[in-house]
Amino acid sequence: MSVSVQERVGALLRGSGMSLSAAESCTGGMISHLVTVVPGASEYYLGSVTSYAVSVKEKVLDVPAEIIDENGVVSGPVAGAMARGIRRLTGSTFAVSTTGLAGPGGDENYPEGTVWIGVDGPLGTRTKIVRKDLGREGNIEAFAVAALEFLVSYMEEYLKTSDDK
Amino acid sequence: MSVSVQERVGALLRGSGMSLSAAESCTGGMISHLVTVVPGASEYYLGSVTSYAVSVKEKVLDVPAEIIDENGVVSGPVAGAMARGIRRLTGSTFAVSTTGLAGPGGDENYPEGTVWIGVDGPLGTRTKIVRKDLGREGNIEAFAVAALEFLVSYMEEYLKTSDDK
Repeated sequence: MSVSVQERVGALLRGSGMSLSAAESCTGGMISHLVTVVPGASEYYLGSVTSYAVSVKEKVLDVPAEIIDENGVVSGPVAGAMARGIRRLTGSTFAVSTTGLAGPGGDENYPEGTVWIGVDGPLGTRTKIVRKDLGREGNIEAFAVAALEFLVSYMEEYLKTSDDK
Repeated sequence: MSVSVQERVGALLRGSGMSLSAAESCTGGMISHLVTVVPGASEYYLGSVTSYAVSVKEKVLDVPAEIIDENGVVSGPVAGAMARGIRRLTGSTFAVSTTGLAGPGGDENYPEGTVWIGVDGPLGTRTKIVRKDLGREGNIEAFAVAALEFLVSYMEEYLKTSDDK
């Protein structure tokens, strides 16, 4: 049986003393749901903010309005600022974020099925763009899985770096 | 085809100018996920906080430590304070919350499968306890659905009260 990405997250964090938080937008709670389906997640998972409204991104996650104005809400800089915001708010070791368009809708710059993913942690902020074409529900799940895979790569790189020291 | 509870939430809020937020604990993001699976949810859904750690309940949702100390974290007063906290934070018309034990685990007072649900809005704070025995994943989904059903009852009562005026 293949191991799900949320089980890999759990295997990396369990017993490590390290913790995780999430800042979601278009994934709407799916990242948090996947992480917390794993029994014992409360040991390493501190919590999340789903910031569907821009006001929640600014007020709760402390994403600067200028970053949103300059780059648009679906952008790498906003994904990065969301991850830094939830990490600062919760004090977690790692944070993962998403901002995108699950659909229906979108525009020429950001068509339906576009998500920017952010990860913040001891190695700094990383972001990447992912595109899917699976309809609203399929995109939400695929975005959440892609975000957790990006987080796992980041955590593995960090653990390798730590081991080398 | 029967209408899901999240579609009923959408039907009540769409075009009403009223809004919703959520504060989750044991449901871990499932309420937020269900609400945002409905296309167009961004019109009325502002966002949520999943407060898995007690520190997030206190710091982000502003749940007073005394309420947690006096009643325990799985309690009506904590569910009520979480709903008031997210409503204050987002400025939403209505807010729904959960705090419980999806399992595995639990104790004699609060066995696995216990959840306290809170709703806050113009009619004040309401809370109720619900018990399920469906295993971790089944309990999470059943708790989220029960919370949204409690919210729908509250919203229907509020709309009736408003109509009467």
